[in-house]
Amino acid sequence: MSPLRALVFDAYGTLFDVHSVIALCEEFWPGKGASFSQLWRTKQLEYTWQRSLMGRYENFGRVTSASLRYACAALGLQLDEERRRRLTEAYLRLATFPDVRSALGELKAMKLKLAILSNGSPAMLRPVVANAGLRDLVGTVISVDQRKIYKPSPDVYRLAAGRLRVPKAAIGFVSSNCWDACGAKSFGFRVFWINRTGAPVDELGAAPDHTIRSLDELPALVRRPA
Amino acid sequence: MSPLRALVFDAYGTLFDVHSVIALCEEFWPGKGASFSQLWRTKQLEYTWQRSLMGRYENFGRVTSASLRYACAALGLQLDEERRRRLTEAYLRLATFPDVRSALGELKAMKLKLAILSNGSPAMLRPVVANAGLRDLVGTVISVDQRKIYKPSPDVYRLAAGRLRVPKAAIGFVSSNCWDACGAKSFGFRVFWINRTGAPVDELGAAPDHTIRSLDELPALVRRPA
Repeated sequence: MSPLRALVFDAYGTLFDVHSVIALCEEFWPGKGASFSQLWRTKQLEYTWQRSLMGRYENFGRVTSASLRYACAALGLQLDEERRRRLTEAYLRLATFPDVRSALGELKAMKLKLAILSNGSPAMLRPVVANAGLRDLVGTVISVDQRKIYKPSPDVYRLAAGRLRVPKAAIGFVSSNCWDACGAKSFGFRVFWINRTGAPVDELGAAPDHTIRSLDELPALVRRPA
Repeated sequence: MSPLRALVFDAYGTLFDVHSVIALCEEFWPGKGASFSQLWRTKQLEYTWQRSLMGRYENFGRVTSASLRYACAALGLQLDEERRRRLTEAYLRLATFPDVRSALGELKAMKLKLAILSNGSPAMLRPVVANAGLRDLVGTVISVDQRKIYKPSPDVYRLAAGRLRVPKAAIGFVSSNCWDACGAKSFGFRVFWINRTGAPVDELGAAPDHTIRSLDELPALVRRPA
């Protein structure tokens, strides 16, 4: 195996906790915050897959708004303009998982190129990375919006290899979304699945190379001779 | 609008109730039948979208088995060979919804070509249609397996138009799966969404032409001059 020269991270669910909006949702709809947040995320992902297959890409900001409206309608929750605006803003200030900052710092000190490859549109990614204070740690932020198709299309992973100018065998890809990890493996990256919840691996014919419980385990694994 | 010359039906969830396996699941895993069946179906669909996007098609029988294994692992349910075999067989004997037989009979009497267009592999579709006694009502059964990609890719809907030799504007497409209805609308069929559960319409940029609660309403709607 080639030594790794770059690490590419998924953003939503991997670095940023999409469910950190639950507190705000609870304020709007007491007792419904967690189930609302779950449905919002589920629909958001379904729309990315379905629109990609339909050939009807629209950017992640619009998909996120559409799935927000759907989730409210499905659960009978009132969504006025004020709530819509505050939830959209909350998505630009998502919390990072507690293991993110120290792991990224350690990996950067190892002289690896660090990048984000995300479904997010550039207008969403810029603020969420800046608000989390990750701008100095992550050198390159790549959005699927350049290709107008979502993960797990191989076009998306190819975009990252091209932007970094590193051969795919020398790129480690890191995601908590197992289907994203499988997509990256199918493309040819060396893949680290962050399995925070103890879920089974998805049966998509391309299992991740490594499964770890937390980003804390990543630096040692990357340092180890292959 | 052209008068309709053919009606194309989705199979799973539209004609056949995938959740009619719940009784058997309850026998195997008391108290878990409904949640198991829900997760099995959810993963089955996710795998069709993800594999299509990854360019790693495998047939619906294999996807259904893979999602069965995943759902058992995720819920900590034991799946031995006997249970696996009986659940796979149950999928070939799914119940039809109560409105199916009378609606199909009435539509056939109106001299419309009736077809099924399904994600199912031919080896799954033949027995489920025969066991439900629908062989004499539905003249043509079309599987996406010919195209090696799943719904809602336009290639799938194009396959149906080609097989029926009817222009797409003269084909009515009927599905209870809203994303499938939207995919068919995006391709150019006239679309009837059977919304049995009162769900909101999916926001995929191509809403169905008609929303009805039951197949019972379909014959009158088709007969009505456009």
